[in-house]
Amino acid sequence: MSAFTAVDVIRAKRDGGVLSDGQIDWVVDAYTRGLVADEQMSALAMAILLRGMTGPEIARWTAAMIASGERLDLSPVTRPTVDKHSTGGVGDKITLPLTPLVAACGAAVPQLSGRGLGHTGGTLDKLESIPGWRAALSNAEFIAQLRDVGAVICAAGDGLAPADRKLYALRDVTGTVEAIPLIASSIMSKKIAEGTGALVLDVKVGSGAFMKTVDDARELARTMVELGKAHGVRTAALLTDMSTPLGLAIGNAVEVTESVEVLAGGGPADVVELTLALAREMLDAAGLADADPAAALRDGRAMDAWRTMIRAQGGDPDAPMPTANEVEVVHADADGYVAGIDAYAMGVAAWRLGAGRARKEDPVSIPAGVVLHKRPGEPVRVGEPLYELRAEHAQRIPAALAEAQRAFRIAPEAPAATPLVIERIG
Amino acid sequence: MSAFTAVDVIRAKRDGGVLSDGQIDWVVDAYTRGLVADEQMSALAMAILLRGMTGPEIARWTAAMIASGERLDLSPVTRPTVDKHSTGGVGDKITLPLTPLVAACGAAVPQLSGRGLGHTGGTLDKLESIPGWRAALSNAEFIAQLRDVGAVICAAGDGLAPADRKLYALRDVTGTVEAIPLIASSIMSKKIAEGTGALVLDVKVGSGAFMKTVDDARELARTMVELGKAHGVRTAALLTDMSTPLGLAIGNAVEVTESVEVLAGGGPADVVELTLALAREMLDAAGLADADPAAALRDGRAMDAWRTMIRAQGGDPDAPMPTANEVEVVHADADGYVAGIDAYAMGVAAWRLGAGRARKEDPVSIPAGVVLHKRPGEPVRVGEPLYELRAEHAQRIPAALAEAQRAFRIAPEAPAATPLVIERIG
Repeated sequence: MSAFTAVDVIRAKRDGGVLSDGQIDWVVDAYTRGLVADEQMSALAMAILLRGMTGPEIARWTAAMIASGERLDLSPVTRPTVDKHSTGGVGDKITLPLTPLVAACGAAVPQLSGRGLGHTGGTLDKLESIPGWRAALSNAEFIAQLRDVGAVICAAGDGLAPADRKLYALRDVTGTVEAIPLIASSIMSKKIAEGTGALVLDVKVGSGAFMKTVDDARELARTMVELGKAHGVRTAALLTDMSTPLGLAIGNAVEVTESVEVLAGGGPADVVELTLALAREMLDAAGLADADPAAALRDGRAMDAWRTMIRAQGGDPDAPMPTANEVEVVHADADGYVAGIDAYAMGVAAWRLGAGRARKEDPVSIPAGVVLHKRPGEPVRVGEPLYELRAEHAQRIPAALAEAQRAFRIAPEAPAATPLVIERIG
Repeated sequence: MSAFTAVDVIRAKRDGGVLSDGQIDWVVDAYTRGLVADEQMSALAMAILLRGMTGPEIARWTAAMIASGERLDLSPVTRPTVDKHSTGGVGDKITLPLTPLVAACGAAVPQLSGRGLGHTGGTLDKLESIPGWRAALSNAEFIAQLRDVGAVICAAGDGLAPADRKLYALRDVTGTVEAIPLIASSIMSKKIAEGTGALVLDVKVGSGAFMKTVDDARELARTMVELGKAHGVRTAALLTDMSTPLGLAIGNAVEVTESVEVLAGGGPADVVELTLALAREMLDAAGLADADPAAALRDGRAMDAWRTMIRAQGGDPDAPMPTANEVEVVHADADGYVAGIDAYAMGVAAWRLGAGRARKEDPVSIPAGVVLHKRPGEPVRVGEPLYELRAEHAQRIPAALAEAQRAFRIAPEAPAATPLVIERIG
């Protein structure tokens, strides 16, 4: 007989109490082993969402999630290890150029990534646009590639924080995703279990992000930075704008193409700016503050690292990207300036075109997505192309077009410029 | 495709919103049919517990619970129908003398009762102490007995408010029992579906009750009275004290014996007082304000109705009650007065003796229980018996004794008298 019961733990949090270390260790372990039922954990998750958790409770909860599985040992990797995590946004392909770029500057980047759900895309879905590339690596393959190539982007194995995997699936269907203690412990338990020595968090703010306000994003960032430090991971965070999609491409193949442009020294200015800002943070955290990531983009070292990384996982970096059968180009019907492109609505447009999935088991379309021709602040004249919608099937277009038209606003005056990097927390 | 999703409904309540009629109808129906999962309903129940519900939301939720099953038609019963519901307490055997008493005064009492769980007893468990008596009646048997005898106490059929049955079992294991909107709708949906024309609620307050404070009890009582009236059921409530057990007997067979004493014109003063107070409320609500329940106790009409009611369900009203093998009598170790008998602790003592159950599927002991020899306010002298513990097995005694000793307090001065009926709400 355990000294704890699920109902007592739920009641304690429900009534605004602080859970003891013993209660947290027990409930996370018992849930992972099926001794606490889904309906009990969802009630507890709702109580946590509405009552909150103290810093020490979040730290213990995270430790219990890590303890539910294995913690990788990256000591065979001699370079300093540093990872990046983004809380997710629209057009956020930054992991693709960033991982080989930071590797080219001397660090090793162990990127365990996920798939997309809803209006935000997933890094693994994007990379699977590349013929032959495979997301699933064994732990041994992961560590060997990290040691030999310095860059690896793959799916997290089942052994890392299994409590989080189970809890995340539950929160997704019970309206309990939006609890900062649970978001922070979910992200950090996986990153700490992955074994990285340093971590940079890209916490998105705005309509296309999970956190809609700077205050919420700052609270999440601070919580995660403290969790990282408490577990011996050098951790910093940038709050970055996600009111507008990143770059010009939103989808799978189209974002790979844009990432390769950045690695070739071109690409949209905002993607380059954020890639470099995050690269500098990562190199700082890895003890490589003297490295020059801008030079590594210019001189082709980042592109070389990309090609090596893709080939190491069976991908052909020279294969052409598949193209869409259906392309609808939307033109301006007035002169003016692009006043704004709502990230959420444009993310939904790409999702409706087939780039995203409604349920975990759905496939995604490789060529589908949105390609912008204009960015906020740019002048437009009647008849100029504003953006194009790409899909495999024509019936996908009308619903996506309605969302895109809601997203894309033209006004007589240019909007005030807004910073991409809002704040640093470290 | 439904216009609603469980996650949207959960989020709306989580964020403090008011659920629409359509949302409530959908979620209760979909949960009953298994389309909304247990883990989703438990998250919603926790959100309701912490965010509350408006009066119209509670009314709609109750209507949806009623609509999940059948509503009995008691029109074959020519006498006015009136029922009583108690929110549960320790030693609360009032239904046993009250039902035949009110029937003897001209009303018909359709008592659908439950079983005990935890420290409070269940009416059906108590009546099953009577050899031959059966709790399960078909709807046709129930209505026929109500018409012919005017008194029936039996288990609620599966067809009444099945949403409540499912939701109650879920709340029990997810720390979401203590939500006034859900308590009120659970009680009232069953009573309204049962078809009674009038209803009197005995809302208990104190350590042995579900509601620990008068404020909470008043809120629950008002919510239920409004729900009853909204559904055309004449409803009133009494708030009554449950800081002390009712009467001298706590258990199954022992409470039947005490109830028969009351029906014979004797019994403890508090049991008689509350039985008569509730009988008068019920007769008022049934339009029989001129009836004299005290006379019906004195002149044997209530006892006659009891015997007829028990026989109608196969019971032998003359069979001796089973007795316990193990009896431990506890004596006073000091002179003084009984300062208090904590209802909760004494309920736990009876439960540990075997009178109650820890899990729904457990059996209960018929002869086990506590019999008090002294009530609060009575003087005691060293060596006088205070109470006795009865059990089928000696190993049940020590843990029960520890609880009973915690419950029973002797002091040098007599305590101030407290009223049994605290307030009327109608």
